[in-house]
Amino acid sequence: MRTKFHDQLDALFDQLTAMCRLAGDAVTTATDALSAADLTLAEKVFGLNERIGALRGPCEDQAMALLALQAPVARDLRQVVTGVFLVSDLSRMGDLAEHIADSVRRRHPHYVAQDRTQHLLISMGRLAGVLATAAALVLQTRDPALALALDVTDNGLDDLHRDVLTLIQEPGWGGSTIEAVDATLLGRFFERFGDHCVEVGRRVIFLATGQQLPQ
Amino acid sequence: MRTKFHDQLDALFDQLTAMCRLAGDAVTTATDALSAADLTLAEKVFGLNERIGALRGPCEDQAMALLALQAPVARDLRQVVTGVFLVSDLSRMGDLAEHIADSVRRRHPHYVAQDRTQHLLISMGRLAGVLATAAALVLQTRDPALALALDVTDNGLDDLHRDVLTLIQEPGWGGSTIEAVDATLLGRFFERFGDHCVEVGRRVIFLATGQQLPQ
Repeated sequence: MRTKFHDQLDALFDQLTAMCRLAGDAVTTATDALSAADLTLAEKVFGLNERIGALRGPCEDQAMALLALQAPVARDLRQVVTGVFLVSDLSRMGDLAEHIADSVRRRHPHYVAQDRTQHLLISMGRLAGVLATAAALVLQTRDPALALALDVTDNGLDDLHRDVLTLIQEPGWGGSTIEAVDATLLGRFFERFGDHCVEVGRRVIFLATGQQLPQ
Repeated sequence: MRTKFHDQLDALFDQLTAMCRLAGDAVTTATDALSAADLTLAEKVFGLNERIGALRGPCEDQAMALLALQAPVARDLRQVVTGVFLVSDLSRMGDLAEHIADSVRRRHPHYVAQDRTQHLLISMGRLAGVLATAAALVLQTRDPALALALDVTDNGLDDLHRDVLTLIQEPGWGGSTIEAVDATLLGRFFERFGDHCVEVGRRVIFLATGQQLPQ
Protein backbone atom coordinates (compact mmCIF):
# COMPACT_ATOMS: atom_id res chain seq x y z
CA MET A 1 0.00 0.00 0.00
CA ARG A 2 2.78 2.48 0.90
CA THR A 3 4.61 1.55 -2.28
CA LYS A 4 1.54 2.32 -4.33
CA PHE A 5 1.29 5.69 -2.59
CA HIS A 6 4.88 6.52 -3.45
CA ASP A 7 4.41 5.42 -7.06
CA GLN A 8 1.42 7.73 -7.37
CA LEU A 9 3.32 10.56 -5.68
CA ASP A 10 6.22 10.10 -8.11
CA ALA A 11 3.72 10.16 -10.97
CA LEU A 12 2.37 13.48 -9.64
CA PHE A 13 5.87 14.97 -9.46
CA ASP A 14 6.62 13.69 -12.98
CA GLN A 15 3.58 15.63 -14.19
CA LEU A 16 4.68 18.74 -12.28
CA THR A 17 8.15 18.45 -13.81
CA ALA A 18 6.56 18.20 -17.26
CA MET A 19 4.48 21.34 -16.53
CA CYS A 20 7.64 23.18 -15.47
CA ARG A 21 9.54 22.13 -18.60
CA LEU A 22 6.66 23.33 -20.76
CA ALA A 23 6.67 26.66 -18.87
CA GLY A 24 10.42 26.93 -19.59
CA ASP A 25 9.81 26.20 -23.30
CA ALA A 26 7.03 28.78 -23.30
CA VAL A 27 9.13 31.59 -21.80
CA THR A 28 12.11 30.76 -24.05
CA THR A 29 9.91 30.68 -27.15
CA ALA A 30 8.27 33.96 -26.09
CA THR A 31 11.75 35.47 -25.73
CA ASP A 32 12.71 34.23 -29.21
CA ALA A 33 9.48 35.77 -30.55
CA LEU A 34 10.33 39.06 -28.82
CA SER A 35 13.86 38.99 -30.16
CA ALA A 36 12.79 38.53 -33.80
CA ALA A 37 9.29 40.13 -33.74
CA ASP A 38 8.16 36.69 -34.94
CA LEU A 39 4.41 36.07 -34.96
CA THR A 40 4.67 32.32 -35.60
CA LEU A 41 6.84 31.85 -32.53
CA ALA A 42 4.47 34.03 -30.48
CA GLU A 43 1.57 31.81 -31.49
CA LYS A 44 3.53 28.71 -30.57
CA VAL A 45 3.56 30.02 -26.97
CA PHE A 46 -0.24 29.95 -26.83
CA GLY A 47 -0.14 26.29 -27.80
CA LEU A 48 2.45 25.54 -25.10
CA ASN A 49 0.35 27.30 -22.46
CA GLU A 50 -2.70 25.30 -23.53
CA ARG A 51 -0.70 22.13 -22.87
CA ILE A 52 0.23 23.46 -19.41
CA GLY A 53 -3.43 24.27 -18.73
CA ALA A 54 -4.44 20.77 -19.82
CA LEU A 55 -2.12 19.26 -17.19
CA ARG A 56 -3.51 21.46 -14.39
CA GLY A 57 -6.83 19.70 -13.77
CA PRO A 58 -5.39 16.13 -13.82
CA CYS A 59 -2.58 17.21 -11.44
CA GLU A 60 -5.02 18.74 -8.96
CA ASP A 61 -7.27 15.67 -9.21
CA GLN A 62 -4.26 13.38 -8.69
CA ALA A 63 -3.21 15.31 -5.57
CA MET A 64 -6.76 15.26 -4.20
CA ALA A 65 -7.03 11.51 -4.86
CA LEU A 66 -3.76 10.93 -3.00
CA LEU A 67 -5.08 12.93 -0.05
CA ALA A 68 -8.48 11.26 -0.04
CA LEU A 69 -7.51 7.67 -0.67
CA GLN A 70 -4.21 7.37 1.12
CA ALA A 71 -4.65 9.72 4.10
CA PRO A 72 -0.91 10.42 4.16
CA VAL A 73 0.84 11.90 7.18
CA ALA A 74 4.06 13.80 7.96
CA ARG A 75 6.53 13.90 5.05
CA ASP A 76 4.12 12.20 2.63
CA LEU A 77 1.42 14.70 3.49
CA ARG A 78 3.83 17.58 2.92
CA GLN A 79 4.70 16.23 -0.52
CA VAL A 80 1.08 16.06 -1.62
CA VAL A 81 0.23 19.52 -0.24
CA THR A 82 3.34 20.90 -1.94
CA GLY A 83 2.14 19.35 -5.17
CA VAL A 84 -1.21 21.11 -4.77
CA PHE A 85 0.53 24.48 -4.33
CA LEU A 86 2.96 23.91 -7.19
CA VAL A 87 0.17 23.44 -9.71
CA SER A 88 -0.78 27.10 -9.13
CA ASP A 89 2.78 28.39 -9.55
CA LEU A 90 3.41 26.40 -12.72
CA SER A 91 0.10 27.43 -14.33
CA ARG A 92 0.91 31.04 -13.56
CA MET A 93 4.33 30.71 -15.22
CA GLY A 94 2.60 29.56 -18.40
CA ASP A 95 0.21 32.52 -18.25
CA LEU A 96 3.09 34.97 -17.86
CA ALA A 97 4.89 33.51 -20.90
CA GLU A 98 1.62 33.92 -22.80
CA HIS A 99 1.36 37.59 -21.74
CA ILE A 100 4.85 38.14 -23.21
CA ALA A 101 3.89 36.44 -26.48
CA ASP A 102 0.72 38.55 -26.53
CA SER A 103 2.80 41.77 -26.53
CA VAL A 104 4.71 40.48 -29.54
CA ARG A 105 1.47 39.67 -31.35
CA ARG A 106 -0.07 43.05 -30.50
CA ARG A 107 2.87 45.05 -31.89
CA HIS A 108 3.62 42.82 -34.89
CA PRO A 109 5.16 43.55 -37.43
CA HIS A 110 6.92 46.14 -35.24
CA TYR A 111 9.37 45.21 -32.52
CA VAL A 112 8.04 45.63 -28.97
CA ALA A 113 11.35 47.07 -27.77
CA GLN A 114 14.52 48.38 -29.36
CA ASP A 115 18.22 48.81 -28.76
CA ARG A 116 19.33 48.55 -25.15
CA THR A 117 15.78 48.08 -23.81
CA GLN A 118 15.31 45.12 -26.16
CA HIS A 119 18.72 43.76 -25.17
CA LEU A 120 17.92 43.88 -21.43
CA LEU A 121 14.49 42.29 -21.90
CA ILE A 122 15.95 39.46 -23.99
CA SER A 123 18.54 38.89 -21.23
CA MET A 124 15.70 38.69 -18.71
CA GLY A 125 13.94 36.15 -20.94
CA ARG A 126 17.04 33.98 -21.31
CA LEU A 127 17.58 33.98 -17.55
CA ALA A 128 13.90 33.16 -16.96
CA GLY A 129 14.35 30.15 -19.25
CA VAL A 130 17.41 29.04 -17.26
CA LEU A 131 15.46 29.41 -14.01
CA ALA A 132 12.60 27.27 -15.32
CA THR A 133 15.03 24.54 -16.41
CA ALA A 134 16.65 24.63 -12.95
CA ALA A 135 13.21 24.57 -11.28
CA ALA A 136 12.25 21.49 -13.36
CA LEU A 137 15.41 19.78 -12.10
CA VAL A 138 14.49 20.73 -8.52
CA LEU A 139 11.06 19.13 -9.02
CA GLN A 140 12.59 16.03 -10.54
CA THR A 141 15.19 15.53 -7.80
CA ARG A 142 13.41 17.25 -4.87
CA ASP A 143 16.90 18.35 -3.76
CA PRO A 144 16.89 21.30 -1.29
CA ALA A 145 20.46 22.33 -2.22
CA LEU A 146 19.43 22.83 -5.86
CA ALA A 147 16.33 24.65 -4.66
CA LEU A 148 18.40 27.19 -2.73
CA ALA A 149 20.46 27.98 -5.84
CA LEU A 150 17.30 29.19 -7.63
CA ASP A 151 17.19 32.20 -5.36
CA VAL A 152 20.70 33.29 -6.37
CA THR A 153 19.88 33.05 -10.09
CA ASP A 154 16.67 34.99 -9.51
CA ASN A 155 18.69 37.85 -7.98
CA GLY A 156 20.29 38.27 -11.40
CA LEU A 157 16.82 38.56 -12.93
CA ASP A 158 15.83 41.17 -10.34
CA ASP A 159 18.98 43.19 -11.18
CA LEU A 160 18.11 43.13 -14.89
CA HIS A 161 14.56 44.20 -14.05
CA ARG A 162 15.87 47.19 -12.10
CA ASP A 163 18.14 48.03 -15.08
CA VAL A 164 15.12 48.03 -17.43
CA LEU A 165 13.11 50.37 -15.18
CA THR A 166 16.11 52.67 -14.65
CA LEU A 167 16.89 52.79 -18.37
CA ILE A 168 13.42 53.73 -19.54
CA GLN A 169 13.11 56.46 -16.89
CA GLU A 170 16.38 58.14 -17.91
CA PRO A 171 15.84 61.59 -19.44
CA GLY A 172 17.71 60.67 -22.64
CA TRP A 173 16.00 57.32 -23.21
CA GLY A 174 14.09 58.47 -26.29
CA GLY A 175 11.42 55.73 -26.54
CA SER A 176 7.71 56.44 -26.88
CA THR A 177 5.19 56.10 -24.05
CA ILE A 178 3.86 52.97 -25.75
CA GLU A 179 7.36 51.47 -25.63
CA ALA A 180 7.67 52.49 -21.96
CA VAL A 181 4.38 50.76 -21.12
CA ASP A 182 5.40 47.61 -22.99
CA ALA A 183 8.87 47.47 -21.40
CA THR A 184 7.38 48.01 -17.93
CA LEU A 185 4.93 45.16 -18.38
CA LEU A 186 7.43 42.78 -20.00
CA GLY A 187 9.95 43.44 -17.23
CA ARG A 188 7.27 42.71 -14.68
CA PHE A 189 6.18 39.47 -16.41
CA PHE A 190 9.73 38.10 -16.54
CA GLU A 191 10.35 39.12 -12.93
CA ARG A 192 7.17 37.39 -11.73
CA PHE A 193 8.06 34.31 -13.78
CA GLY A 194 11.34 34.16 -11.83
CA ASP A 195 9.51 34.64 -8.52
CA HIS A 196 7.37 31.59 -9.25
CA CYS A 197 10.51 29.54 -10.01
CA VAL A 198 11.89 30.58 -6.61
CA GLU A 199 8.56 29.63 -5.07
CA VAL A 200 8.95 26.15 -6.59
CA GLY A 201 12.29 25.94 -4.77
CA ARG A 202 10.82 27.27 -1.53
CA ARG A 203 8.12 24.62 -1.60
CA VAL A 204 10.57 21.81 -2.33
CA ILE A 205 12.61 22.91 0.70
CA PHE A 206 9.45 22.82 2.80
CA LEU A 207 8.74 19.38 1.43
CA ALA A 208 12.22 18.07 2.25
CA THR A 209 12.66 19.71 5.64
CA GLY A 210 9.22 20.76 6.87
CA GLN A 211 10.63 24.28 7.31
CA GLN A 212 8.94 27.34 5.81
CA LEU A 213 11.47 29.75 4.33
CA PRO A 214 10.85 33.44 4.99
CA GLN A 215 9.06 35.10 2.00
CA MET B 1 -14.80 13.83 16.52
CA ARG B 2 -16.51 15.17 13.39
CA THR B 3 -17.73 18.14 15.38
CA LYS B 4 -14.21 18.92 16.45
CA PHE B 5 -13.08 18.72 12.80
CA HIS B 6 -15.77 21.16 11.72
CA ASP B 7 -14.94 23.53 14.58
CA GLN B 8 -11.30 23.55 13.49
CA LEU B 9 -12.31 24.02 9.86
CA ASP B 10 -14.53 26.96 10.82
CA ALA B 11 -11.60 28.40 12.78
CA LEU B 12 -9.42 28.10 9.66
CA PHE B 13 -12.01 29.92 7.54
CA ASP B 14 -12.36 32.61 10.22
CA GLN B 15 -8.62 33.21 9.92
CA LEU B 16 -8.83 33.31 6.12
CA THR B 17 -11.71 35.80 6.36
CA ALA B 18 -9.56 37.94 8.69
CA MET B 19 -6.68 37.80 6.17
CA CYS B 20 -9.03 38.89 3.39
CA ARG B 21 -10.42 41.80 5.43
CA LEU B 22 -6.87 42.95 6.18
CA ALA B 23 -6.03 42.74 2.45
CA GLY B 24 -9.11 44.89 1.76
CA ASP B 25 -8.00 47.43 4.39
CA ALA B 26 -4.53 47.40 2.87
CA VAL B 27 -5.66 48.11 -0.70
CA THR B 28 -8.12 50.79 0.46
CA THR B 29 -5.46 52.47 2.61
CA ALA B 30 -2.98 52.28 -0.29
CA THR B 31 -5.60 53.94 -2.51
CA ASP B 32 -6.13 56.69 0.08
CA ALA B 33 -2.34 57.17 0.21
CA LEU B 34 -2.23 57.39 -3.60
CA SER B 35 -5.11 59.85 -3.66
CA ALA B 36 -3.49 62.27 -1.16
CA ALA B 37 0.25 61.49 -1.74
CA ASP B 38 0.19 60.68 1.99
CA LEU B 39 3.32 59.00 3.36
CA THR B 40 1.78 58.12 6.75
CA LEU B 41 -1.04 56.22 5.07
CA ALA B 42 1.44 54.47 2.75
CA GLU B 43 3.42 53.30 5.77
CA LYS B 44 0.24 52.05 7.43
CA VAL B 45 -0.11 49.61 4.50
CA PHE B 46 3.24 47.98 5.36
CA GLY B 47 1.93 47.35 8.88
CA LEU B 48 -1.27 45.82 7.53
CA ASN B 49 0.66 43.52 5.20
CA GLU B 50 2.86 42.42 8.09
CA ARG B 51 -0.30 41.38 9.93
CA ILE B 52 -1.41 39.41 6.85
CA GLY B 53 2.01 37.75 6.66
CA ALA B 54 1.82 36.85 10.36
CA LEU B 55 -1.44 34.96 9.74
CA ARG B 56 -0.01 32.98 6.82
CA GLY B 57 2.14 30.47 8.72
CA PRO B 58 -0.50 29.64 11.36
CA CYS B 59 -3.14 29.18 8.62
CA GLU B 60 -0.94 26.80 6.65
CA ASP B 61 -0.08 24.89 9.83
CA GLN B 62 -3.76 24.71 10.78
CA ALA B 63 -4.67 23.31 7.35
CA MET B 64 -1.83 20.77 7.51
CA ALA B 65 -2.89 19.70 11.01
CA LEU B 66 -6.46 19.19 9.81
CA LEU B 67 -5.20 17.04 6.94
CA ALA B 68 -2.81 15.03 9.09
CA LEU B 69 -4.93 14.50 12.16
CA GLN B 70 -8.39 14.17 10.75
CA ALA B 71 -7.77 12.50 7.37
CA PRO B 72 -10.85 14.17 5.92
CA VAL B 73 -12.55 12.94 2.74
CA ALA B 74 -14.87 14.32 0.02
CA ARG B 75 -16.36 17.74 0.87
CA ASP B 76 -14.31 18.10 4.07
CA LEU B 77 -11.13 17.37 2.16
CA ARG B 78 -12.03 19.95 -0.48
CA GLN B 79 -12.55 22.57 2.21
CA VAL B 80 -9.12 22.01 3.73
CA VAL B 81 -7.34 21.95 0.35
CA THR B 82 -9.20 25.10 -0.64
CA GLY B 83 -7.96 26.69 2.56
CA VAL B 84 -4.39 25.77 1.66
CA PHE B 85 -4.75 27.44 -1.76
CA LEU B 86 -6.48 30.51 -0.38
CA VAL B 87 -3.59 31.33 1.94
CA SER B 88 -1.46 31.97 -1.18
CA ASP B 89 -4.03 34.21 -2.85
CA LEU B 90 -4.64 36.27 0.28
CA SER B 91 -0.92 36.74 0.98
CA ARG B 92 -0.43 37.89 -2.58
CA MET B 93 -3.24 40.45 -2.23
CA GLY B 94 -1.40 41.95 0.74
CA ASP B 95 1.85 42.09 -1.26
CA LEU B 96 0.13 43.87 -4.14
CA ALA B 97 -1.34 46.50 -1.79
CA GLU B 98 2.18 46.97 -0.42
CA HIS B 99 3.58 47.48 -3.95
CA ILE B 100 1.02 50.27 -4.45
CA ALA B 101 1.98 51.91 -1.15
CA ASP B 102 5.62 51.57 -2.15
CA SER B 103 5.02 53.68 -5.31
CA VAL B 104 3.50 56.40 -3.13
CA ARG B 105 6.51 56.32 -0.81
CA ARG B 106 8.99 56.38 -3.69
CA ARG B 107 7.46 59.48 -5.32
CA HIS B 108 6.61 61.36 -2.11
CA PRO B 109 6.11 64.36 -1.77
CA HIS B 110 5.01 64.27 -5.43
CA TYR B 111 1.83 62.58 -6.59
CA VAL B 112 2.38 59.28 -8.44
CA ALA B 113 -0.30 60.16 -11.00
CA GLN B 114 -2.27 63.24 -11.99
CA ASP B 115 -5.56 64.35 -13.49
CA ARG B 116 -7.49 61.68 -15.37
CA THR B 117 -4.81 59.00 -14.87
CA GLN B 118 -4.98 59.58 -11.11
CA HIS B 119 -8.77 59.53 -11.26
CA LEU B 120 -8.88 56.17 -13.08
CA LEU B 121 -6.30 54.58 -10.75
CA ILE B 122 -8.22 55.74 -7.66
CA SER B 123 -11.39 54.24 -9.18
CA MET B 124 -9.51 50.96 -9.65
CA GLY B 125 -8.39 51.09 -6.00
CA ARG B 126 -11.92 51.74 -4.73
CA LEU B 127 -13.27 48.83 -6.76
CA ALA B 128 -10.43 46.58 -5.55
CA GLY B 129 -11.47 47.43 -1.97
CA VAL B 130 -15.10 46.53 -2.77
CA LEU B 131 -13.95 43.22 -4.30
CA ALA B 132 -11.93 42.34 -1.20
CA THR B 133 -14.89 43.09 1.06
CA ALA B 134 -17.09 40.89 -1.14
CA ALA B 135 -14.44 38.15 -1.15
CA ALA B 136 -14.29 38.24 2.67
CA LEU B 137 -18.07 37.75 2.73
CA VAL B 138 -17.71 34.81 0.34
CA LEU B 139 -15.14 33.24 2.68
CA GLN B 140 -17.35 33.85 5.69
CA THR B 141 -20.50 32.38 4.11
CA ARG B 142 -18.90 29.96 1.60
CA ASP B 143 -21.87 30.83 -0.66
CA PRO B 144 -21.28 29.97 -4.37
CA ALA B 145 -23.87 32.54 -5.56
CA LEU B 146 -21.92 35.35 -3.90
CA ALA B 147 -18.71 33.90 -5.31
CA LEU B 148 -20.03 34.14 -8.88
CA ALA B 149 -20.84 37.84 -8.39
CA LEU B 150 -17.14 38.57 -7.76
CA ASP B 151 -16.42 37.86 -11.41
CA VAL B 152 -18.90 40.50 -12.58
CA THR B 153 -17.40 43.17 -10.31
CA ASP B 154 -13.91 42.22 -11.50
CA ASN B 155 -14.97 42.89 -15.11
CA GLY B 156 -15.45 46.53 -14.08
CA LEU B 157 -11.90 46.55 -12.74
CA ASP B 158 -10.59 45.08 -16.01
CA ASP B 159 -12.44 47.81 -17.97
CA LEU B 160 -10.82 50.52 -15.84
CA HIS B 161 -7.44 48.88 -16.35
CA ARG B 162 -7.91 48.99 -20.12
CA ASP B 163 -8.92 52.66 -19.81
CA VAL B 164 -5.68 53.45 -17.93
CA LEU B 165 -3.50 51.75 -20.56
CA THR B 166 -5.41 53.39 -23.44
CA LEU B 167 -5.20 56.82 -21.81
CA ILE B 168 -1.47 56.83 -21.21
CA GLN B 169 -0.77 55.60 -24.75
CA GLU B 170 -2.81 58.39 -26.37
CA PRO B 171 -0.64 60.85 -28.33
CA GLY B 172 -1.94 63.86 -26.37
CA TRP B 173 -1.57 62.32 -22.90
CA GLY B 174 1.28 64.61 -21.85
CA GLY B 175 2.67 62.70 -18.85
CA SER B 176 6.35 61.81 -18.41
CA THR B 177 7.81 58.36 -18.99
CA ILE B 178 8.17 57.99 -15.22
CA GLU B 179 4.45 58.63 -14.85
CA ALA B 180 3.73 56.13 -17.63
CA VAL B 181 5.80 53.44 -15.87
CA ASP B 182 4.10 54.12 -12.53
CA ALA B 183 0.61 54.10 -14.02
CA THR B 184 1.34 50.87 -15.93
CA LEU B 185 2.53 49.12 -12.76
CA LEU B 186 -0.24 50.48 -10.53
CA GLY B 187 -2.89 49.43 -13.06
CA ARG B 188 -1.35 45.99 -13.15
CA PHE B 189 -1.23 45.69 -9.32
CA PHE B 190 -4.90 46.62 -8.93
CA GLU B 191 -5.89 44.27 -11.76
CA ARG B 192 -3.99 41.35 -10.20
CA PHE B 193 -5.51 42.15 -6.81
CA GLY B 194 -8.94 41.75 -8.43
CA ASP B 195 -7.89 38.49 -10.09
CA HIS B 196 -6.99 37.03 -6.70
CA CYS B 197 -10.40 38.06 -5.33
CA VAL B 198 -12.01 36.19 -8.25
CA GLU B 199 -9.75 33.24 -7.47
CA VAL B 200 -11.10 33.25 -3.91
CA GLY B 201 -14.58 32.95 -5.43
CA ARG B 202 -13.50 30.22 -7.84
CA ARG B 203 -12.09 28.18 -4.99
CA VAL B 204 -15.19 28.59 -2.84
CA ILE B 205 -17.29 27.32 -5.78
CA PHE B 206 -14.98 24.30 -6.06
CA LEU B 207 -15.36 23.78 -2.34
CA ALA B 208 -19.16 23.92 -2.47
CA THR B 209 -19.70 21.93 -5.65
CA GLY B 210 -16.49 20.01 -6.36
CA GLN B 211 -16.50 21.63 -9.84
CA GLN B 212 -13.48 23.46 -11.22
CA LEU B 213 -14.47 26.64 -13.03
CA PRO B 214 -12.64 27.36 -16.27
CA GLN B 215 -9.69 29.77 -15.70
